[in-house]
Amino acid sequence: MLNLKNEKIPRATIGRLSLYVQQLEILEQQGEKVISSEKLAKICGVNPSQIRKDLAYFGEFGVRGVGYYIYELKQAIKKSLGLDRIWKVVLVGVGNLGRALLRHNVLIKRGFIVVGAFDCDPFKIGEEIAGLEVMCSSNLPQKIKELDAEIGIITTPQERAQRAANYLIKGGIKGIVNFAPARITVPSHIVVEYVDFINHLFSTAFQISLNQAKGMYS
Amino acid sequence: MLNLKNEKIPRATIGRLSLYVQQLEILEQQGEKVISSEKLAKICGVNPSQIRKDLAYFGEFGVRGVGYYIYELKQAIKKSLGLDRIWKVVLVGVGNLGRALLRHNVLIKRGFIVVGAFDCDPFKIGEEIAGLEVMCSSNLPQKIKELDAEIGIITTPQERAQRAANYLIKGGIKGIVNFAPARITVPSHIVVEYVDFINHLFSTAFQISLNQAKGMYS
Repeated sequence: MLNLKNEKIPRATIGRLSLYVQQLEILEQQGEKVISSEKLAKICGVNPSQIRKDLAYFGEFGVRGVGYYIYELKQAIKKSLGLDRIWKVVLVGVGNLGRALLRHNVLIKRGFIVVGAFDCDPFKIGEEIAGLEVMCSSNLPQKIKELDAEIGIITTPQERAQRAANYLIKGGIKGIVNFAPARITVPSHIVVEYVDFINHLFSTAFQISLNQAKGMYS
Repeated sequence: MLNLKNEKIPRATIGRLSLYVQQLEILEQQGEKVISSEKLAKICGVNPSQIRKDLAYFGEFGVRGVGYYIYELKQAIKKSLGLDRIWKVVLVGVGNLGRALLRHNVLIKRGFIVVGAFDCDPFKIGEEIAGLEVMCSSNLPQKIKELDAEIGIITTPQERAQRAANYLIKGGIKGIVNFAPARITVPSHIVVEYVDFINHLFSTAFQISLNQAKGMYS
């Protein structure tokens, strides 16, 4: 159940909350119990006033003079973001990136279980990857319902992304995370997020170019 | 060479320019020569006035009543972002994600050549992946200079990200794209970008939860 002071959390805040959750989990694994907002800010690379402002959306977790209780803060953020439960995911497109995600333990660690893997290549259908048998993409609409999946990950080539999205939508998916370098068209009630890692390489190259123009490396 | 009207391009604009370049390349592959700002806006999922505003940073590419010449616009954006040349990249951490990136043709298609792959696992050193022989991470400082690499991609587990960054910095890297779920500390002249795909899954789950709370799926 969501428990928000304000449903209109800005996009950038959600990104930072996601970062806080991940860093709090790392601290927890290291045996830490309490952390000051200054220290959490430093680890996350944001300023302390920003952290206090972000957490204000979710109520009061800080204790003056002590800091934040790590477990409680993490649970509260997760609950507020709807992450205090398991999310079932199907993945479409079993290429290099799709395989890497299927084998990546970070998904399950963060509460996302891949319950089905799909591809339209007859040579891949039937193959077993990370305990899942690859199924034919055209079965998606039926399988999504059977598997009770809510989120679809698209890792197809760009030219097959829209078809994958169509299958997912037909199956009643609620949200799509698209790793393919293509925009997709979906009905307005479907949530879509784009993961564009080339963007980050472009941005890095651009910032280096600016630094070079300033003579920073000469 | 950079050729900018204004070096202070906002972060969000760089993200969209990266998207425009990718979509323009797709249009080019499809044999298109000219596109209106309305159509380009639709494909990219942004509004036309935003596109016109973004492109104003780079001079005048639009022709009234015709639209944009695709090749010229793409080249101009790439030149402005320092993407009109090849960038040499080294990758540290040859796990599932690292392997997927090494085999992913999108890097080379976008002008990023991986010239070296590194890992600290003796069982991986010497292995050949996508034509590259995996080298020992401790050789990074020397190899970066030999290979003339400017950008480092980190795909290690979170607990080894900082050590990978230290090796990269010692070798004189100019920018780092970090896929590991850990913040890293670097000198101020080093560019760092974080690729956090879990963030997008969190955001999707959160938006679905909000929609559910509004009864949108019942």
